Amino acid sequence: MTMLEYGPDIIIIDMGLQFPEEDMLGIDYIIPDTTYFEGKENNIRGVFITHAHYDHIGAIPHLIGKLGNPPIFSSDLSLKIIEKRQNDFRSVGKLNTQVVTTNDHVKVGCFEVEFFGVSHNIPTSMGLIIHTPLGIVIHTGDFKLDLNISGDTPTEITKIAKLGDKKVLALLSDSTNAPQSGHQLSEFEIQRNLEDIIRNAPGRLIVGTFASLLGRIQQIIWAAEKCNKKIIIEGFSMKSNVEIAHNLGYLKTEKGTMITTAQMKDFPNNRIVILCTGAQGEDNAVLMRIANKEHRSIGIEKHDTVVFSSSVIPGNERSVQKLKDSLYRQGAEVIHYQMMDIHAGGHAKAEDLKLLLNLVRPQYFIPIEGNHSFLRMHAKIAEQTGIDPKKIFVADNGQVMEFNKTGGRLTTTKVPADYVFVDGLGVGDVSTVVLRDRQLMAEDGMLVIIATIDSKTGELTNSPDIISRGFIYMKENKKMVEQTRAKIKTVLKENNPKKVNNDTYLKDKIRNEIGQFLFDKTERRPMILPVIIEV
Amino acid sequence: MTMLEYGPDIIIIDMGLQFPEEDMLGIDYIIPDTTYFEGKENNIRGVFITHAHYDHIGAIPHLIGKLGNPPIFSSDLSLKIIEKRQNDFRSVGKLNTQVVTTNDHVKVGCFEVEFFGVSHNIPTSMGLIIHTPLGIVIHTGDFKLDLNISGDTPTEITKIAKLGDKKVLALLSDSTNAPQSGHQLSEFEIQRNLEDIIRNAPGRLIVGTFASLLGRIQQIIWAAEKCNKKIIIEGFSMKSNVEIAHNLGYLKTEKGTMITTAQMKDFPNNRIVILCTGAQGEDNAVLMRIANKEHRSIGIEKHDTVVFSSSVIPGNERSVQKLKDSLYRQGAEVIHYQMMDIHAGGHAKAEDLKLLLNLVRPQYFIPIEGNHSFLRMHAKIAEQTGIDPKKIFVADNGQVMEFNKTGGRLTTTKVPADYVFVDGLGVGDVSTVVLRDRQLMAEDGMLVIIATIDSKTGELTNSPDIISRGFIYMKENKKMVEQTRAKIKTVLKENNPKKVNNDTYLKDKIRNEIGQFLFDKTERRPMILPVIIEV
Repeated sequence: MTMLEYGPDIIIIDMGLQFPEEDMLGIDYIIPDTTYFEGKENNIRGVFITHAHYDHIGAIPHLIGKLGNPPIFSSDLSLKIIEKRQNDFRSVGKLNTQVVTTNDHVKVGCFEVEFFGVSHNIPTSMGLIIHTPLGIVIHTGDFKLDLNISGDTPTEITKIAKLGDKKVLALLSDSTNAPQSGHQLSEFEIQRNLEDIIRNAPGRLIVGTFASLLGRIQQIIWAAEKCNKKIIIEGFSMKSNVEIAHNLGYLKTEKGTMITTAQMKDFPNNRIVILCTGAQGEDNAVLMRIANKEHRSIGIEKHDTVVFSSSVIPGNERSVQKLKDSLYRQGAEVIHYQMMDIHAGGHAKAEDLKLLLNLVRPQYFIPIEGNHSFLRMHAKIAEQTGIDPKKIFVADNGQVMEFNKTGGRLTTTKVPADYVFVDGLGVGDVSTVVLRDRQLMAEDGMLVIIATIDSKTGELTNSPDIISRGFIYMKENKKMVEQTRAKIKTVLKENNPKKVNNDTYLKDKIRNEIGQFLFDKTERRPMILPVIIEV
Repeated sequence: MTMLEYGPDIIIIDMGLQFPEEDMLGIDYIIPDTTYFEGKENNIRGVFITHAHYDHIGAIPHLIGKLGNPPIFSSDLSLKIIEKRQNDFRSVGKLNTQVVTTNDHVKVGCFEVEFFGVSHNIPTSMGLIIHTPLGIVIHTGDFKLDLNISGDTPTEITKIAKLGDKKVLALLSDSTNAPQSGHQLSEFEIQRNLEDIIRNAPGRLIVGTFASLLGRIQQIIWAAEKCNKKIIIEGFSMKSNVEIAHNLGYLKTEKGTMITTAQMKDFPNNRIVILCTGAQGEDNAVLMRIANKEHRSIGIEKHDTVVFSSSVIPGNERSVQKLKDSLYRQGAEVIHYQMMDIHAGGHAKAEDLKLLLNLVRPQYFIPIEGNHSFLRMHAKIAEQTGIDPKKIFVADNGQVMEFNKTGGRLTTTKVPADYVFVDGLGVGDVSTVVLRDRQLMAEDGMLVIIATIDSKTGELTNSPDIISRGFIYMKENKKMVEQTRAKIKTVLKENNPKKVNNDTYLKDKIRNEIGQFLFDKTERRPMILPVIIEV
């Protein structure tokens, strides 16, 4: 989420979600902190969405209401996908959406926004040309430069080139693939390879990819049509995206290409192509259900070929490997993108980025999108094209950049930019304390110790109860349970009866001494929860 | 761990550990199930260790005693590393170790074992040539074919070639890099690149790698000596390995090359090379401590260059990325192996594997080491070299292969081969029940509900207590806590007083109804632990 503010006018670019880090246990996703906008809701003139991937639209249902429901400007396809997702959320109002095309100019406050088409594996992706009182700011969104015709929107580089050399105040450009040298592969190559695979598949072909990779889906449909094969789409989100794109004319199919799962039996296996979600090894996606024999109508059969047509998102490597193993075990052939060019990322690589920098030659350069190290590598790329290092701003989340008539600077001011965790229906209610407790319990489990004490004598009225989860399996470790119980009794006997009513003192004592006792026995540190009941 | 059994004679090859999968929370590592050997301990004639990496030696301290402490045959270096690790374990006896060289023949029961040197980034790695009553079995261990001289043992391919065409009954060969086409990079190339980096580093050079990558460590030392730079080793395990290898003559340094951390100040930064552990982003390793400013004497300084000279183990991608970001933020330059050839894996790639298959031309081929899909890909590679697919056995863990005079077959018999989890001092005491509990609590936390009930009336004697961890932060969610408390009261009121003494019934009722209540409110499913106290 990027914000431009000039006087009383604010525009927002994208409103995405981020997937949780490994130590953020149980968190569904992370959304931006919008504290800065409190009290400024009326200044927000519009939200511009570059394309309909979740890392650019995912926070809308959670944030748009809090921001006073400003108008959302985007393409017809992106807005339909946004509206579809909005339906999944209870009690959020209707969105104020306004369709734009790359021919439009939108005036919002002191800003005037133009759009240029970019290639990015989902049709109608666009970058923004923002005319501000201080000059032009370009925001590329996610993009690559694909010079061949494909299922994708071509990048309208002439529109950018026309702005003229050094006329752009600041270029904000996608750094996702900045660490990768050379040029991004063209979808044209992918098309050829997919066609070969589809033509030569001896049985059914099952292609796993992202539900939102509509450009790729179009290519597979084209290839299947060339080879006289039928397409089945499996997976709710993919079906829904395909339907939206088809209705708006962004996805073209010949009559009779698409069949239902039920119609599969009417065709020989080698005329069937199943397109589905789950190439990341996601637990409930179609490909995983097929591999786990949990899918209601599709199982792996002899001569099936499974194609993984998407790159593996960092963090998913092991799930994907497990999924492949399971497919192999059931006799499928597996083709993944490392064996053959059947996937191109949606992002410009180093040499592509240099081309854009040469076309624009901006006064200031701001690498965006990607880890800090990616931004730093993109900064280096910009230096190589001749941009003054002092005019390259590698900003942290929340770090303010200021421009005025005399120039720009990266300030040390930070607006609040903490992670806001979404977990189930809760937004922001999972704090670091809660996360730390989850980590502790994930590591070594926990132990509840219940001691009933006579309020007069301070003595145990009966043997303490122990409940453990995730620590040891109590039924099989009776000896240790008994030893722990005995230890609790000792700890409580040593208790100074004068302090009997000091719950906190007693609880800390149990926690520390039993914790140490169990650590000595097991070298594990379960969370210990003492419960003292006075009767 | 591989076992060969003939009549009353058993030999074991390697005894490694496996790192836990992502869903095995809190598990330190996994060791092999040795149930099959119960009652057969006296038949075990020897354990042969191919090399001293933890995935080949890590289970020794846990298993060797149970197996009757049979003799362990390996190189001097491997045995010293094994013995060193043994010291970390309390109450394990002395190992019965026997040093062998690649010139030795060892007769154990009906087997006679010879050794051949292989390259694998740690000196003295070896493969086994096992003469059995039915023919020769070759076990490669982990290997690559490096035809250049380096810090590593060269692979003695002549020894294998000499055995003669089709004279080998079965070849068991390393599949770790079977999915990768072409030839493995030579360490010779790495050497050149490392030298360039070391020579041109404007300030200190910090090289992160594995503590056991002794071949690479030697190369870095050589390169530093050529450039007249000094080496500091940081990290307990790396120091210890280097010391062992140096004492045995497997690691050579010129006098004065190695200096201590304290001596660093006596040299300009551009003459300092720090070799350390932590290139996998491990929490407590040196590189992470340096990046987190937790290292007692080394912090990132301007002009530092950090080199990641090891591939990223699947599952560690995100930790490594985080580590790089942190180093970049502090102003270091980062060079990782994807940018430049500064790391070669220790395993033969597809074309190397074909060469070995051509040299041996075994009657039977058994791909080993690696995920099931890697074994399948290696099987395909073997087919391409002309091995009869019926004579290629892709076996699961525990699956028995039988050979007799008429030939071999992959049976459907399985010996127990379950994962045995090591967690702290516990071996095998963490069951799937315990793991499932950890997963549940990691996901949504837990809630202890304590209800004190009058044993006569079945009524609550006071308001129920609630303790929650990892679910919501109770102090900030008082309203939900109150609602939950009220709901508990309702649930207990509805209770049939006749069933008051039926604890299980009451507990299930609370668990189900409060579980549903909280799910409706939060869409989270914390583990619920009801405690009923009758007074």
